[in-house]
Amino acid sequence: MKSELKKLTDSIQPLDAPAMKRAQERLNSLTKPLGSLGRLEQLAEWAAGVTRQVRPRFPERVVFVFAADHGVAAEGVSAYPQAVTEQMVLNFLRGGAAINVLARQAKAKVVVADFGVAAEMPAHPGLARRKIGLGTKNFLKEPAMTEGQALAAILEGARLADDNRRAGSSCFATGDMGIGNTTSASALVAALARIPVLEATGRGTGIDDQTLERKIRVIEEALSLHDVGPDDPVSALAKVGGFEIAGLVGVILAGAAARVPVVIDGFISGAAALVASRICPEAKNYLLAAHVSVERGHKHILKDLGLRPLLDFDMRLGEGTGAALAFPILEAACAVLDEMATFQEAGVSEKTKEESPA
Amino acid sequence: MKSELKKLTDSIQPLDAPAMKRAQERLNSLTKPLGSLGRLEQLAEWAAGVTRQVRPRFPERVVFVFAADHGVAAEGVSAYPQAVTEQMVLNFLRGGAAINVLARQAKAKVVVADFGVAAEMPAHPGLARRKIGLGTKNFLKEPAMTEGQALAAILEGARLADDNRRAGSSCFATGDMGIGNTTSASALVAALARIPVLEATGRGTGIDDQTLERKIRVIEEALSLHDVGPDDPVSALAKVGGFEIAGLVGVILAGAAARVPVVIDGFISGAAALVASRICPEAKNYLLAAHVSVERGHKHILKDLGLRPLLDFDMRLGEGTGAALAFPILEAACAVLDEMATFQEAGVSEKTKEESPA
Repeated sequence: MKSELKKLTDSIQPLDAPAMKRAQERLNSLTKPLGSLGRLEQLAEWAAGVTRQVRPRFPERVVFVFAADHGVAAEGVSAYPQAVTEQMVLNFLRGGAAINVLARQAKAKVVVADFGVAAEMPAHPGLARRKIGLGTKNFLKEPAMTEGQALAAILEGARLADDNRRAGSSCFATGDMGIGNTTSASALVAALARIPVLEATGRGTGIDDQTLERKIRVIEEALSLHDVGPDDPVSALAKVGGFEIAGLVGVILAGAAARVPVVIDGFISGAAALVASRICPEAKNYLLAAHVSVERGHKHILKDLGLRPLLDFDMRLGEGTGAALAFPILEAACAVLDEMATFQEAGVSEKTKEESPA
Repeated sequence: MKSELKKLTDSIQPLDAPAMKRAQERLNSLTKPLGSLGRLEQLAEWAAGVTRQVRPRFPERVVFVFAADHGVAAEGVSAYPQAVTEQMVLNFLRGGAAINVLARQAKAKVVVADFGVAAEMPAHPGLARRKIGLGTKNFLKEPAMTEGQALAAILEGARLADDNRRAGSSCFATGDMGIGNTTSASALVAALARIPVLEATGRGTGIDDQTLERKIRVIEEALSLHDVGPDDPVSALAKVGGFEIAGLVGVILAGAAARVPVVIDGFISGAAALVASRICPEAKNYLLAAHVSVERGHKHILKDLGLRPLLDFDMRLGEGTGAALAFPILEAACAVLDEMATFQEAGVSEKTKEESPA
């Protein structure tokens, strides 16, 4: 499996500079003051670099919502009971969750996958069954999973992403569900980004002060118990990660390898992005940070990855909800590049004085 | 005409607190941690207050792009020749401008209106001909328009908005085109918000340092020449305003009077919103600030109006481009409120401990 992962990461290439240059030239010829669409212009140029196309469009988009349970939930680190993971997966399948609503608005498909819910899920045409285990182990006592399981989850995520790409999806987004998963994500972020656990740990679904203190202590003890270091991302993922997080690492690597833009949601997706960037730094270039979450620690991830979030909406739900909001903005940016008239086409006078591109 | 304006402003009522409370209760019953959709939840609640509906939706949206010329352009305050106003109106009518592209993406109608382009515009089915004059006068020498013209433009804008509302539009956005109009808007903002001209004046379409100095001097001289004060918004509009800005004041007042949300674009739209808020402070409650522009002075407007912008995309184009980007976000917020399943409907367990609403 290690060689399969290596094959995947070896195929990740830099952004395409010539396509970006040509996109920039086209943007500068359109009927607007130079650079006056700001961030939209940067997004369009980036999309050109990702896809190698001067006028990229993303008509078919998909949000990968990966679900799994976390053994560490037994330590009382969440405000909700573990059964909610399964219940929410059923809610996704019925179309009643926030991500279903927001994906419909964004005309995006939702791919729900069970990477390790702690219950046997019923067969359902909308559910990809990729269970690695019935939840991870409690990482306060033992490693969350084996390295073999971590690799398997990454490769399953990559395969699912690739299957969807071959079926026509040209833009990915990452989403998650898993009671206890902010505890796992905080542990990964503290270890990989080398920041204090206190800085990496927030209130998740809304825990009180006492629970937050316990959550921080649990993470600190686990990092010490397993001697989690910053230099081996797959080992860190195995020791304190989650099956859904590992699956999302696979989505990100597969997107980058196939030159597909990957829109990253909040804290859990961010932790997956951090792991992916440690496995293959080049993968960062294929990521768009949809928003900055209120979950403490997310800012540190974005800073580490060098990503500027599009939105700052005080969100902290996960599921890919923030990422779904970013799809229409990316599409708007690409529509500007693709559809606007040039000064010449429109017969509009250019600037009276010289101006250098902003 | 003054009595007509009074009739309009007298009909502007506060937001509907009971509808907001019921929307908030519904939001709290949906399958997500309390308050975890942050800004989206606030938007949905606000939309309920605007419309008096607990589950408001806005299927038909319209961007009002009002165009006019500015006599003060003769002072060399813009980077583009005056002819560009007319040329861009033709570009709007052919669908090649940024606002056409972004409105198509947002499934919004564009209503292009000539409020005072300095050229006779051809008849065109897509052009509302509401010309108040062939451009304003150069306000460095004489008042930009008469108070009668200012009132006429406001009422024309309000009528056009109301016609569209009656034809089915349930959400408005404001946009502008007019070479020289940042000079006019800066003068209005400096006078009405009582801030130094230097703080209210930016680079518009991208002027150089020398032109910026001239622009500031022109505004300072004009404000002093006409003794423009903060207490009479219609007089200020007449002295240093523009026909398209006055028209947008009418759109805002008509939207507020009819309980229609008005999405405000950047600096020019912001100046119109400031004028509208001075005519009728209650009108502020019906405004959604789409973004914060890089144009210096826009921040001051938003602060004065007490509005937090949705987006910060370094944009400075106008035309309603930022506002068009906000439509899908407002619609997403309303879809969450309308379409998500409740905990009870979805059979999802609620929080294990008490939690107070965020």
